[in-house]
Amino acid sequence: MIFEHMDRIVFAGDSVTDMESAQPVGEGLFENVGKSYVRIVENMLAAFYPEIYLRVTNSGISGNTSRDLLQRFDRDVVSLKPDWVSICIGINDVWRQFDSPAIPDEQVSPEEYRSNVEKMILSVKDNVKGVFLMTPYYMEPNAEDWMRKRMDTYGAICRELAEKYGCCFIDLQAVFNDYFQYRHSSYIAWDRIHPNQIGATVIARAFLEKCGFDYNHRPGEE
Amino acid sequence: MIFEHMDRIVFAGDSVTDMESAQPVGEGLFENVGKSYVRIVENMLAAFYPEIYLRVTNSGISGNTSRDLLQRFDRDVVSLKPDWVSICIGINDVWRQFDSPAIPDEQVSPEEYRSNVEKMILSVKDNVKGVFLMTPYYMEPNAEDWMRKRMDTYGAICRELAEKYGCCFIDLQAVFNDYFQYRHSSYIAWDRIHPNQIGATVIARAFLEKCGFDYNHRPGEE
Amino acid sequence: MIFEHMDRIVFAGDSVTDMESAQPVGEGLFENVGKSYVRIVENMLAAFYPEIYLRVTNSGISGNTSRDLLQRFDRDVVSLKPDWVSICIGINDVWRQFDSPAIPDEQVSPEEYRSNVEKMILSVKDNVKGVFLMTPYYMEPNAEDWMRKRMDTYGAICRELAEKYGCCFIDLQAVFNDYFQYRHSSYIAWDRIHPNQIGATVIARAFLEKCGFDYNHRPGEE
Amino acid sequence: MIFEHMDRIVFAGDSVTDMESAQPVGEGLFENVGKSYVRIVENMLAAFYPEIYLRVTNSGISGNTSRDLLQRFDRDVVSLKPDWVSICIGINDVWRQFDSPAIPDEQVSPEEYRSNVEKMILSVKDNVKGVFLMTPYYMEPNAEDWMRKRMDTYGAICRELAEKYGCCFIDLQAVFNDYFQYRHSSYIAWDRIHPNQIGATVIARAFLEKCGFDYNHRPGEE
Amino acid sequence: MIFEHMDRIVFAGDSVTDMESAQPVGEGLFENVGKSYVRIVENMLAAFYPEIYLRVTNSGISGNTSRDLLQRFDRDVVSLKPDWVSICIGINDVWRQFDSPAIPDEQVSPEEYRSNVEKMILSVKDNVKGVFLMTPYYMEPNAEDWMRKRMDTYGAICRELAEKYGCCFIDLQAVFNDYFQYRHSSYIAWDRIHPNQIGATVIARAFLEKCGFDYNHRPGEE
Amino acid sequence: MIFEHMDRIVFAGDSVTDMESAQPVGEGLFENVGKSYVRIVENMLAAFYPEIYLRVTNSGISGNTSRDLLQRFDRDVVSLKPDWVSICIGINDVWRQFDSPAIPDEQVSPEEYRSNVEKMILSVKDNVKGVFLMTPYYMEPNAEDWMRKRMDTYGAICRELAEKYGCCFIDLQAVFNDYFQYRHSSYIAWDRIHPNQIGATVIARAFLEKCGFDYNHRPGEE
Amino acid sequence: MIFEHMDRIVFAGDSVTDMESAQPVGEGLFENVGKSYVRIVENMLAAFYPEIYLRVTNSGISGNTSRDLLQRFDRDVVSLKPDWVSICIGINDVWRQFDSPAIPDEQVSPEEYRSNVEKMILSVKDNVKGVFLMTPYYMEPNAEDWMRKRMDTYGAICRELAEKYGCCFIDLQAVFNDYFQYRHSSYIAWDRIHPNQIGATVIARAFLEKCGFDYNHRPGEE
Amino acid sequence: MIFEHMDRIVFAGDSVTDMESAQPVGEGLFENVGKSYVRIVENMLAAFYPEIYLRVTNSGISGNTSRDLLQRFDRDVVSLKPDWVSICIGINDVWRQFDSPAIPDEQVSPEEYRSNVEKMILSVKDNVKGVFLMTPYYMEPNAEDWMRKRMDTYGAICRELAEKYGCCFIDLQAVFNDYFQYRHSSYIAWDRIHPNQIGATVIARAFLEKCGFDYNHRPGEE
Repeated sequence: MIFEHMDRIVFAGDSVTDMESAQPVGEGLFENVGKSYVRIVENMLAAFYPEIYLRVTNSGISGNTSRDLLQRFDRDVVSLKPDWVSICIGINDVWRQFDSPAIPDEQVSPEEYRSNVEKMILSVKDNVKGVFLMTPYYMEPNAEDWMRKRMDTYGAICRELAEKYGCCFIDLQAVFNDYFQYRHSSYIAWDRIHPNQIGATVIARAFLEKCGFDYNHRPGEE
Repeated sequence: MIFEHMDRIVFAGDSVTDMESAQPVGEGLFENVGKSYVRIVENMLAAFYPEIYLRVTNSGISGNTSRDLLQRFDRDVVSLKPDWVSICIGINDVWRQFDSPAIPDEQVSPEEYRSNVEKMILSVKDNVKGVFLMTPYYMEPNAEDWMRKRMDTYGAICRELAEKYGCCFIDLQAVFNDYFQYRHSSYIAWDRIHPNQIGATVIARAFLEKCGFDYNHRPGEE
Repeated sequence: MIFEHMDRIVFAGDSVTDMESAQPVGEGLFENVGKSYVRIVENMLAAFYPEIYLRVTNSGISGNTSRDLLQRFDRDVVSLKPDWVSICIGINDVWRQFDSPAIPDEQVSPEEYRSNVEKMILSVKDNVKGVFLMTPYYMEPNAEDWMRKRMDTYGAICRELAEKYGCCFIDLQAVFNDYFQYRHSSYIAWDRIHPNQIGATVIARAFLEKCGFDYNHRPGEE
Repeated sequence: MIFEHMDRIVFAGDSVTDMESAQPVGEGLFENVGKSYVRIVENMLAAFYPEIYLRVTNSGISGNTSRDLLQRFDRDVVSLKPDWVSICIGINDVWRQFDSPAIPDEQVSPEEYRSNVEKMILSVKDNVKGVFLMTPYYMEPNAEDWMRKRMDTYGAICRELAEKYGCCFIDLQAVFNDYFQYRHSSYIAWDRIHPNQIGATVIARAFLEKCGFDYNHRPGEE
Repeated sequence: MIFEHMDRIVFAGDSVTDMESAQPVGEGLFENVGKSYVRIVENMLAAFYPEIYLRVTNSGISGNTSRDLLQRFDRDVVSLKPDWVSICIGINDVWRQFDSPAIPDEQVSPEEYRSNVEKMILSVKDNVKGVFLMTPYYMEPNAEDWMRKRMDTYGAICRELAEKYGCCFIDLQAVFNDYFQYRHSSYIAWDRIHPNQIGATVIARAFLEKCGFDYNHRPGEE
Repeated sequence: MIFEHMDRIVFAGDSVTDMESAQPVGEGLFENVGKSYVRIVENMLAAFYPEIYLRVTNSGISGNTSRDLLQRFDRDVVSLKPDWVSICIGINDVWRQFDSPAIPDEQVSPEEYRSNVEKMILSVKDNVKGVFLMTPYYMEPNAEDWMRKRMDTYGAICRELAEKYGCCFIDLQAVFNDYFQYRHSSYIAWDRIHPNQIGATVIARAFLEKCGFDYNHRPGEE
Repeated sequence: MIFEHMDRIVFAGDSVTDMESAQPVGEGLFENVGKSYVRIVENMLAAFYPEIYLRVTNSGISGNTSRDLLQRFDRDVVSLKPDWVSICIGINDVWRQFDSPAIPDEQVSPEEYRSNVEKMILSVKDNVKGVFLMTPYYMEPNAEDWMRKRMDTYGAICRELAEKYGCCFIDLQAVFNDYFQYRHSSYIAWDRIHPNQIGATVIARAFLEKCGFDYNHRPGEE
Repeated sequence: MIFEHMDRIVFAGDSVTDMESAQPVGEGLFENVGKSYVRIVENMLAAFYPEIYLRVTNSGISGNTSRDLLQRFDRDVVSLKPDWVSICIGINDVWRQFDSPAIPDEQVSPEEYRSNVEKMILSVKDNVKGVFLMTPYYMEPNAEDWMRKRMDTYGAICRELAEKYGCCFIDLQAVFNDYFQYRHSSYIAWDRIHPNQIGATVIARAFLEKCGFDYNHRPGEE
């Protein structure tokens, strides 16, 4: 597994990452780390690898676009001196274009999105062991849906930036597309955005897979 | 307009009809009539036709399937001696098949749905001036979506029963399909089922259209 | 209809406009726009004209007199760069004269009222497509009632200013007077000021009528 | 003063009498007796006549019509074995005719009103020292107002029954009419029905006046 | 009666005056004026003298000693430009000596009390029509009780200051002493300090008596 | 000490005993045993005698008179098969005579009080190791106070019954009288009835003194 | 994996199983299934095996001993017609012996425990595909701790019954013992009983391991 | 007893001291002093020594490490000018090492602990009559437990500092070790840190023992 004893992993994002975590960042005791995939990732790491102590920090804030996240990135990510950074942003950049079409100042264009995420990557990449980039997604299997199509544009920018900067790329849209071959989207999210605990587990699994997580690992065994 | 002074109109249904109405039925003062399209229908009738007094009763209960509604139909509809009855049921019959696929007792098959709605119609049709039948719907423009396709089956049963018994048929699925040519579904409902106030207005408009509602009506003018 | 795609309409006022809207101004998602006639105006525009995206902003604050509104007019109206402005103010200017007769500093005289509203008009009229001026009202059909009589003085100032500056004038007092030929005031407001949802619909209808709103409009049809 | 040491006085009525009193009847410690004129009557009696112990019971329930009160009159009045009974009922009998015109079962006609109140009087008059009958009222000085005019019909029935059975008659409508020569109705009630504490004091004063209450009384002085 | 049309009366004090009034000062609409004797004084004035408009302001704050009140006297009394000022302070000065004997900084000595109250009087007396001075009290008829005895010392200072500066003196301790000849103190206050509504009425009566309040007054009658 | 391993002690009483204990009886985990002297007695027994396990049950219910307690004595005391019973009742029997003088049915006379307490004693005395009888009290050092004097009558009945049936008698009135030589009653109770935690400790000390409680006891030492 | 499409799995237990699940049993939408290991088991099954629909029911109730669970076993387990049953009970049987040593009726002896669990097994074993038996545990690595030692006695009974009836045995005590070689118990539970989300994940992992759960499973792949 | 009339005793610490006390420091009326051993110490002093007035101040704040306490020591202890100071700190210094092993900045090393406590002692010792030093503790009888062993290191530092500076040393770990010979730790604390009321009484007893508290003391007796 790629994480080492006493590494700090910071997850930046929007409500999908936040889910009731302490504000602006949450970690450690009580419910501080929230109820999102971050909670599940920490559960799995701590339950399967008790001999490796990892500091998991949730820097998600509900409603954030990439513009909002960039604005607080120094305070909530860089200054925490993370060993690893995971970014999952962009859903609200797109969503506001469809649920608030007449309020342009709440929307973020693909160009600005690319610039925002690129700045985030640049501000951390030289000081961390690795950067994870998760695509924004829409739990809509129909690729012709207006919002899904638009989201795919932003996801493609993610992929492009991940390749350019050697980030670990996690294509959540593809993960959900696979899943919806077996279950309807309403099974894991009522609004096609906010996953329930099962949906969060799907995300956490996709993340752990990129980390060399070994489900058969037992400390003390070879 | 088809409603006459002192007519009573009872709207039966699920959460789309209910929306915080008094339980089991609500009408009159305060917030009793809830916040759904029923509220808007009453607002429009009372604002445009002040000279015609109409009793509008909300018999919607959240989460109801057609089985649940049939079970309480005598108490909450028939015994109220309505002049007009409007039925909008079936969404939960279908939804549970997708969000709770492993719990068959919460789902209602097309056959049972047909039977349930037919029994409702038969129990009132001879004693009322008219019955409205609204289709269940899924605010999903993609007709290939599993749940939308399934919902269409139930909508077709509605249409068939409306024709068989001379009910006034309101094809809400078609209404929303039209609407989604101009706006994305997330504009009027986050979960593609529960309309916000704009979505409720779309339903109310479809209903009023079937009632000969004249938006240019002014009492005292000819 | 007079509104064009992507126009912004700002409604300034007191509790009649506010009704639980976000403070100091509310728009867009959730319940931000409140529950007043503004909510209904937005519902109707969005439901009947889905092809025209309009930004509807509620700048109402409960309890405001014209003095209070003027004091915040730059922040809550002018700086929002509206295309259209609607002002409905004055009820509290008068009401305090009757429910708090011994507290003169909470009351606003007709002279000050005229000056306050005039300043509001002047601060926006050159930069907007139109200004709506709604009269303050008292839902009291008896023109000899002390408070109704006083309110009429303020309404007359509204009319005068509307004419002077070419505002679109909406005589809400007259609208309610008409309505009370058919229903008692207690049907739409318990305190003769705050309309229930039916009363709010009456106001919204009066507003839409001034906008060339076509209830038979269907996008895509000619 | 007409009340004697250890007399029990029961006040029956609707929300004007109730005002948060314990349900169905309230008296004694804490806030049981509510916040209406009953509270003020008890305050005055106890403050000015400390040497006379009186048991004051509030049998008001909000929303009651004369039909509702009659239905519970045995339980909440007769069975308490009062020495004095005060009845103030009828406002809701009339109000429902105007705020809920399409719901006839919630309204009470003058004929039924007369019968209901008469039955109440007959059920107690032989076992008490006296019966007080307060008119229902509408805080509307305009005698031509539809609801005020209707209320006067019920008030006249009260007067007639009071004379027929020798009850102590309290014309609250007249009391308020006098008051409104000096203040606007909005000063003591926002909805023209529910008095604020000042309005409740006006009622209490009218009641005490009929009891020979001496404001200059001092125990121990002659 | 001594009060004239449009006079403003400010009541300064502790929890006996405050009783849930708006903070720091309360008046006018809603529950702002609190539930103490101030509320009752306003009720009586407004109910019996509707032709005289009086502004009644509650400047009581729970827990205040004379030191606390002096510290805020400019803001909460003087700057309001009252026509009449009523001061009822000192109970907490004494009470803390008995319920918190080991915390000397929360107690106020007789010397400081005299100085504090004197400063209050001096700061207003030349600009008002009159100053009322109410004694602090302890609802304990036994003059040998430690706290009662101590309270009497402070009451005597009040009397002395009232005489020195020509204030209207209200001896609440004497008023309650009289009352307790007929009822036990537990009838009007559980803790012998905070009066219930009956006790508040006793205080209000004592106040009104000093104002030439005429209970038989009727506007329009001679 | 008189209690033996695994003894059960049941404390019956009113609010002085109850103080937020579980209803109708409370013991064991969490806050079930309430916050009264019972809690303190259990704390002391468990902290000083850890080797002796004792079951302490709180059967106090706020507001109870001896009549109320007798009515539930079988259910809440006898049926629990206690080894020891402690009764502290009578305060409300007396209090209601002073705070509710006009409501005779809530008061209990000395004769009935004697009979009630005697029945309680008789129902348990043959099946327990001992009965404690605590006097009702009034934290008023002035023996001439009406309520204190009345309370003494009930306390004397307690003493008499304790002697007649060999109960362990605890004269709480005397305990408080002693205490008030050093502190004012307001130090341990605001209403002279409900002790604060210090007052509860005073009661607990008086109780433990009757039990042979040894404050110097240390298990394992001789 | 041992579970088949449309199997129903019922988890019976105490607070470790319950954790805010719907009462008495919870499943399906919203938070009904609670926050315990049951939630995590369902998450993992649904996330990794989307093609297999499983009905997961939580029949845990906080505070239950084996006696309590047996008493409701028919209603909450048997009558649900499960395909699989998992039982985790006994912690409270033991805990009450240590936190409530003087209250024997809340404790359950080893003999009764054996009998209770045996009856549960017998009531379902012939009608299900399998029974899981999880040991009660105490998160205390010191085997000499009084409560841990006692808990081991109950765990041994579990093992014995599992062998006798061919149940799938899950030794949670051993699982935690292993875990505490790497982390202190305070890391996963503050009271050594109620696991946090990491502790619940440890339990869920132990359960899934017995089910042939394949973490590398992907539907559609061979 | 060592405390003299009008002495002030300040208790500094973490949640064990705090337990809902007013923040940052609490004393006097109402629940300000919290529910910890401080409350019990004050109860005992006031109940047994009513003739000696003592000011007991709770300066505990939940979650504090010695670093946190040092940082606020001037404000919350020194500036209060205490006659006696009691310090009980260090539990969180250790606990965070086990429940948050990956978050080093929340932990305090033995070296820093020694320095922190020494600074506290030095800042007060010359201006007070005495300093009490209570050891941090872990209610774990097994001395080999990782956290207990670590806690003992910090307790030893306490003892060493107490000897060096002549503080009154209270070995709470030893007190609890004795106690656990008779009861299991779960009897007085669920998480082995926060005592219930019985555990708090055990601490209070240990404190009072060091103060020459005489349980047989009676004022006025020799």
